[in-house]
Amino acid sequence: MSQKQAVEVEVRELEEKDAQELLGLMREIYLQSDFLSMDESDVNHTVEEQRESLKNIYESANNTLLGAFVDGKLVGTAGIHASHQRRIFHIGEIGISIHQDYWNSGLGTLLMQDLIDWAKDSKVIRRLQLTVQKRNTRAVHVYEKMGFKTETIMERGAIDADGHFLDVHLMSLMID
Amino acid sequence: MSQKQAVEVEVRELEEKDAQELLGLMREIYLQSDFLSMDESDVNHTVEEQRESLKNIYESANNTLLGAFVDGKLVGTAGIHASHQRRIFHIGEIGISIHQDYWNSGLGTLLMQDLIDWAKDSKVIRRLQLTVQKRNTRAVHVYEKMGFKTETIMERGAIDADGHFLDVHLMSLMID
Repeated sequence: MSQKQAVEVEVRELEEKDAQELLGLMREIYLQSDFLSMDESDVNHTVEEQRESLKNIYESANNTLLGAFVDGKLVGTAGIHASHQRRIFHIGEIGISIHQDYWNSGLGTLLMQDLIDWAKDSKVIRRLQLTVQKRNTRAVHVYEKMGFKTETIMERGAIDADGHFLDVHLMSLMID
Repeated sequence: MSQKQAVEVEVRELEEKDAQELLGLMREIYLQSDFLSMDESDVNHTVEEQRESLKNIYESANNTLLGAFVDGKLVGTAGIHASHQRRIFHIGEIGISIHQDYWNSGLGTLLMQDLIDWAKDSKVIRRLQLTVQKRNTRAVHVYEKMGFKTETIMERGAIDADGHFLDVHLMSLMID
């Protein structure tokens, strides 16, 4: 028997009841990573606003937000955001956020696979896309492993805390 | 003297007082073009919601909405939309909509030049970007003429009214 304990992770769609725990996680995560666009303006919602947002996502045909739970505690999220507009209704933009205690644990790969499965089941999402900073090489590698292709590297696609411009990959995966 | 009359166009930032006229124009335009993402869901706002939106845009450091007026009548708009998030605060997404009576009149070029000037004056916008359907070759040509470069052509970047996928240019212009 291996000494290494496998971590049991439950992944499910987040619902209204998860609003408070989600806000708590987001408030921790945005301080942990320079790789995310998320900042304090994204975590200043009230619980009631967050409940409303989760309700709308849950009921939408082309949006989802999955939560990863370890021992019943929310430790990461993975979402697909898509527009209400018909011309681009089929394009899902992916965002994944994981608590630093679970970086490099394989959780990103697991969540991405669940998102891809969700997109396939949705029948309406036909293109997944994401942006990721070029310097976040580990994430780029995970996305490539899952089948994403870099369409371009966007000049000035982000800016770091010191005001320096960063290259950002635009990656996509067709869903059939 | 030429027989051709030059059309006099006034371009200015839209304000709260323009809400009703803007909604009227948008309701006409979205029916005229297959090249826009805008659909009926974007024109179902109340005048009060539109006033609030125009107020927020007008007061924002990295968002603007310009209106083109001919004989005092609004005939087109050109906007820069940017995020509140610090990491991407400097990225302005461009959207231009023109009433079909003024297509191919040079108004698109005029509005784009005004947007570029606005971006330079803003001091905060450092990358302009836009998406445009590949089949909209006239618009692609205008944007190239103004200095925009195609970073990639996105597969399935849009879908037409018959459900066929369309290629979409991602174009950008650095602002210094």
